[in-house]
Amino acid sequence: MNAHPSKPIAAAPQTVTTGPIAGSRKYYATPAGRPDMRVPLREIVLSDPALEPVRVYDPSGPYTDDGARIDLAAGLAPLREPWIAKLGLETVSGRAIRPEDNGGVSAENLVPECPAPRPIRRAAAGRMVTQLEFARAGVVTPEMVYVAHRENLGRAQAAEGAGGRRADGESFGASIPEFVTPEFVREEVARGRAIIPANVNHTELEPMAIGRNFLVKINANIGNSAVTSSVAEEVEKMVWAIRWGADTVMDLSTGRNIHNIRSWILRNSPVPIGTVPIYQALEKVGGDPLKLDWEVFKDTLIEQAEQGVDYFTIHAGVRLAHVPLTARRVTGIVSRGGSIMARWCLAGHRESFLYERFGDICDIMRAHDVSFSLGDGLRPGSIADANDAAQFAELETLGELTKVAWDKGCQVMIEGPGHVPMHKIKENMDKQLRECGEAPFYTLGPLTTDIAPGYDHITSGIGAAMIGWFGTAMLCYVTPKEHLGLPDREDVKVGVITYRIAAHAADLAKGHPAAKIRDDALSQARFDFRWDDQFNLSLDPDTARAYHDATLPKDAHKVAHFCSMCGPKFCSMKITQDLRKEAEAMAGMAAKSEEFLAQGGKLYVDAAG
Amino acid sequence: MNAHPSKPIAAAPQTVTTGPIAGSRKYYATPAGRPDMRVPLREIVLSDPALEPVRVYDPSGPYTDDGARIDLAAGLAPLREPWIAKLGLETVSGRAIRPEDNGGVSAENLVPECPAPRPIRRAAAGRMVTQLEFARAGVVTPEMVYVAHRENLGRAQAAEGAGGRRADGESFGASIPEFVTPEFVREEVARGRAIIPANVNHTELEPMAIGRNFLVKINANIGNSAVTSSVAEEVEKMVWAIRWGADTVMDLSTGRNIHNIRSWILRNSPVPIGTVPIYQALEKVGGDPLKLDWEVFKDTLIEQAEQGVDYFTIHAGVRLAHVPLTARRVTGIVSRGGSIMARWCLAGHRESFLYERFGDICDIMRAHDVSFSLGDGLRPGSIADANDAAQFAELETLGELTKVAWDKGCQVMIEGPGHVPMHKIKENMDKQLRECGEAPFYTLGPLTTDIAPGYDHITSGIGAAMIGWFGTAMLCYVTPKEHLGLPDREDVKVGVITYRIAAHAADLAKGHPAAKIRDDALSQARFDFRWDDQFNLSLDPDTARAYHDATLPKDAHKVAHFCSMCGPKFCSMKITQDLRKEAEAMAGMAAKSEEFLAQGGKLYVDAAG
Repeated sequence: MNAHPSKPIAAAPQTVTTGPIAGSRKYYATPAGRPDMRVPLREIVLSDPALEPVRVYDPSGPYTDDGARIDLAAGLAPLREPWIAKLGLETVSGRAIRPEDNGGVSAENLVPECPAPRPIRRAAAGRMVTQLEFARAGVVTPEMVYVAHRENLGRAQAAEGAGGRRADGESFGASIPEFVTPEFVREEVARGRAIIPANVNHTELEPMAIGRNFLVKINANIGNSAVTSSVAEEVEKMVWAIRWGADTVMDLSTGRNIHNIRSWILRNSPVPIGTVPIYQALEKVGGDPLKLDWEVFKDTLIEQAEQGVDYFTIHAGVRLAHVPLTARRVTGIVSRGGSIMARWCLAGHRESFLYERFGDICDIMRAHDVSFSLGDGLRPGSIADANDAAQFAELETLGELTKVAWDKGCQVMIEGPGHVPMHKIKENMDKQLRECGEAPFYTLGPLTTDIAPGYDHITSGIGAAMIGWFGTAMLCYVTPKEHLGLPDREDVKVGVITYRIAAHAADLAKGHPAAKIRDDALSQARFDFRWDDQFNLSLDPDTARAYHDATLPKDAHKVAHFCSMCGPKFCSMKITQDLRKEAEAMAGMAAKSEEFLAQGGKLYVDAAG
Repeated sequence: MNAHPSKPIAAAPQTVTTGPIAGSRKYYATPAGRPDMRVPLREIVLSDPALEPVRVYDPSGPYTDDGARIDLAAGLAPLREPWIAKLGLETVSGRAIRPEDNGGVSAENLVPECPAPRPIRRAAAGRMVTQLEFARAGVVTPEMVYVAHRENLGRAQAAEGAGGRRADGESFGASIPEFVTPEFVREEVARGRAIIPANVNHTELEPMAIGRNFLVKINANIGNSAVTSSVAEEVEKMVWAIRWGADTVMDLSTGRNIHNIRSWILRNSPVPIGTVPIYQALEKVGGDPLKLDWEVFKDTLIEQAEQGVDYFTIHAGVRLAHVPLTARRVTGIVSRGGSIMARWCLAGHRESFLYERFGDICDIMRAHDVSFSLGDGLRPGSIADANDAAQFAELETLGELTKVAWDKGCQVMIEGPGHVPMHKIKENMDKQLRECGEAPFYTLGPLTTDIAPGYDHITSGIGAAMIGWFGTAMLCYVTPKEHLGLPDREDVKVGVITYRIAAHAADLAKGHPAAKIRDDALSQARFDFRWDDQFNLSLDPDTARAYHDATLPKDAHKVAHFCSMCGPKFCSMKITQDLRKEAEAMAGMAAKSEEFLAQGGKLYVDAAG
C-alpha cells in the first residue's frame, strides 16, 4: 500500500509508510450497541492456531491496515463527521489565510494547502461543544464509547483474555477499573481527571483518552525541515511516529509553510495533534518576542483551532513574578515558550498577556474543543534546578488556571518536567495532583541525570517509567538526539519504542488489568522456543528478528530449542523443559511443592558446612 | 599506544584499544601518608582554564593512560605484589594444568597460557588472608586505603570539589558518608556490608569496593568466541568494557581454551574478574549435568582461584526442595547454573552438592580471598514469575549461606533478579537486606517488562536505576542483544553506558556527596554553550559529538550560542542569557526574587480571565 498525493510538490518521497507491523493485522472491534463504530486494535497472530491472538492498543491509524486506501490529498476518512454533525455547531467560512501564516514564503516555494474539503465549525450560542461540557451534563458522547472500547483492548468484559489473570500493582491512589465502561470515561472526563483531545474540526481523529486511570500514553514531537521537498515527507514524520506507537503528535514546526503543512498533517492524522501557538505567533512578528501581543496570539489560536489542532500548549503560568526566581539557576529557562514569555514580561516589567487574557484564550479553545496543555515554561533544565521555587511557583499558577479553564468548560492537561533526579520525581507528581485537582499530567521524561547526551532517551526513559507509575497520564518522548541535534527517522523510532517501554512498565506497575497479557504471551513464547511469536509480540519485531538473525540466521534456528547465547548444551530453558517433563513423569512437581510448603520449607538440614 | 603481545597467536587483531577517552586524561592521586600509592582517576579538562577539571571514577586501567606501555604477554604491572608479599602467605607450585581445563582442545588449536610469571599463593596456617578477616581484626589494608581515595574521586576532604555542594537524596537507610576514610572502608567490610573482591593471586588489580555505602558499580559479561583467532581479541572484550565504565567483568566463557584465555584476561585486567565455575566443571564432564560431582567442582574452584579469579558465582541456594516451587512458572528456571543444579538435584532426588559442601567451598575461597557471589539460580525470567515462592525461598537460603561464609572469613555478595515489574522491585531489595544482613546485592537489571527484546538494555536500565537507588551495590549490565544473540562491540558499549546511567542516576538519588558535580559541570557547560565541554563531560563523548555534528558539522558551531534544535532565534538558553544580562543591569534579579518571596508570592492579581 502506497499513498499517492494527487498533487505532487517535488521530486522527494511522495509516499508514506503503510502496511502492517510484522506479524500483526488490523482488527476492528465494535462496541455493543454501536454497529456503526469500528474501534481499531492490532492483533498479533501466534504461530500455534490453538493460541488466541494477542490484541494490543493501536494508535497507528489506517496506515497499518492492509485494506485501507491512503490518499494524502483526500485525507483520512472523517469518521467523526456524523457525530459532530449532530452537535448543532455553527459552520463558518473561517479566518482567511494570510502570507504570514506560512512565514511569508515566496510563491514558488509555497506548499499548497491540503485540498481535502472539510467544513469549519465552532460552538453555537447556548450549545455544548466540549467533551467536558457533555460529560458534566451526563451525556456519553460517541468519543467516550470509542475510548472505552479501545482502552479495554477489545475485551468484551473484565477478566477475559489470555488467562484472565488480574494483575497486581500499586497505583498510588489511581482508580483503574477492571473494565472500562463508557460511563466510566464520562465520569473521568467530567471530573477533569481525563481528557479526550478532539477538536471538532479534526473529524479524522480516532478518539483517545489521556488520564491516570487509563493506559499511559506517549507523545512524539515532529517539526518541519528547513527545506520542505514534499508534503508526503512531512506527513511521513507523523505516520512513522504513530506506526511505532505514538498516541499523540506535537507539531513544533516554525518558519515557512507551517500553516499549509499543518493542514496536510491534520487531514491525515488519526491521532490528536498538539501545537505551541506562540511559536507561530512569534514568526508572525518577525521573531522578536517583544513584538508579541494579544492580537497576534489570538489570531493564531483561531487559525490553528479552525484547522483542527487538538491541544495547545499555553505557557500562561510564566508570570512576571516568577521570572526572578530563575535568577540563580544553573540552566535558567530551558522552555522555548517559557523564555519567550519571560523576555516579554521582563522587557516591559509587565504581566504575561497569556495570564491576563487567559479567560479569552479559554473562550476560543472551548469554541472548538481544543484542549489545554498548560505549559511548564519554567521546567528545570538540569538536575541542579529540579523542584525549585520557580518550577513550583509556576505549577501553583497552573493549578489556578486549571480551575479557570474548567469553569469555562475546557479540557485541561498539565505539562511537567524536565530534568529531575529519581528521589524528586514523586514530589512532582504529588504536587501536580494536589495543585491541579488531578488534571492529567503530561511530562517530558524526566531525565534522571544530565551526564549522558546521546542517550537521553534512556536517562529520561527511567524517569518516564517512574512518573508514569506514580500517575502521569502521558509521557512526551525524548530521542537520542536530545540536546544535540535533530532526530532522524531512526532516532524517532528509538524514542517512541523507549517511551512505549516506559508507558508499559508503568501500566504493569499500576496494575492495569490487561497490561500483563502481552508480557505473559511473549514470555510463554520464549519458554516454548516459538521464536517468531517472540519477535512478533515485541514492541519492535523487525529489530528483534534482525538481532537474532545476526547470530543465528538460519530459518531452522527459528524453531531451535536454544539460542546463540548459551547454545544447546547450556540452555537453561531447554534444561528446565526437560526437567519439567521428567519431574511430571516422576511424581508431580506441584504436589511436591505443596508438601514442601506445608512443612515450612524445612525438608532438609538447616546449615551447610 | 598499542599493545604488542610477544607471541602472536594468529592473524586476527593483535592489539587492544588504548589511549584516553576524548577530552580526558589519566590522573593519579596519592592518599595522605601513602606516597607509594597511585590511585587512578579520569580528569575531564574544560575549555576554560579558569575552571577546575572534573575528576571522575575510572575503572579503565592503564589502557587509557597515554604514558602506559601495554604488553599483553607481560601483563599489567602487579601493583598489589608488595602488599601481598607482606601477608605471609604460602607460595605453592599450583595445580597442574590438564587437557580438560581447556576443553580438550587439540594441540594445533591450543592457545598458549599467558607467559607473565606470577607466584601462586594461598593462605598459610593460622594467618589471615581475606579482606574480611583483616577488617574484623581492625587492620586497614592497603586495598582499603586505595578504595577510600578512589571513592572520594580524589577529593582531599569533604565538601570540596566543584562548588562543594552537598547533594540531597533519599538513601533508604544507607549510610553514605560525606567523605570516605580508610577506616570507614574497614568498618563496612568488617560488617559484611561491602566487599573488596581481590584474589591474592590477582596482583594486577586496582582494588575497588562493592557496597551500598559506596558508588554504585556495574558489571559487564564477556564470553569467548566459538573460534578464537587471537588472545588480543579476547582480552580486548575486557578492555573495551572497562574503557566505557565496567567496574568488574565476568568471564562466562565455555568450551575450548578457557583456562588459557582466562590467564591472559586476568594478567591484563585491572578490574575484578568473576566467573561461574560450574560452567567449566560441566565442560570437564562432557556437558552432562548428571555427571557433575564435588570432586570436579572442587578441582575447578582451585584451578580458577590459583589463576586469580576475584569472585565466583556459586548457585548453592538451588536446593532440591526449591525445584518443585518452579513447576507452575511461565519461564521455569532461566539461570544456566540454576537449571544445571536443578537437574542434578532432581535426577537423583538428592540435595545440591554445592549446598552440602558449602563449608568446603568456603575454605577454598577463603584461602585465596575469592569473594562469593551467591547465585540466584531461581531468579524470575519473566514478569509473571517475579517475587514468587521459588525466588524468595532461594533468597532465604542465600541469607543462611551468607552467615556460613562470613563465619568462615569469606567476603560475600548476593545475586538478584531478573525480570521484576517496578512495583515489586523494592520488596526484593528490602528482603535481600533483611535476609542477607546487608551483604551487597548484585542484580541483573531487573527488566521491568518482557515485551521489548532488542531493547532490554532499556527495560532493565529502568529497573537497575531504581534498585540501585534502593540499595543495590552492583548492577549487572544487559545489552540490546539480551534474549536474542551474542552482543557485539557496539552492543557491549551501549550496555555499559546504559548501566553507567543507571548507576549514576542511583548515586544522585541516594545523595552521594560527589555525584552531582559532574551533572552540574555538564549543565553549566550546556548553558554556557561550551559544546566541547558538554561532549567531554558526557559518558560517551564520541557519540555526543557525532550526533551534534550530524546536524551542525562546522567547527564554528561548537562555540555557537544555539544548536540545531531551535536555531538562534528560538534558543531558550540564549534568550535566558540575554534576559539575565538585562535583568542584572536593571535592578538585580536576586533582590527581586527575595522581594517576591517576602510578599508571599502574591505581587499580582490572583486569577486570570
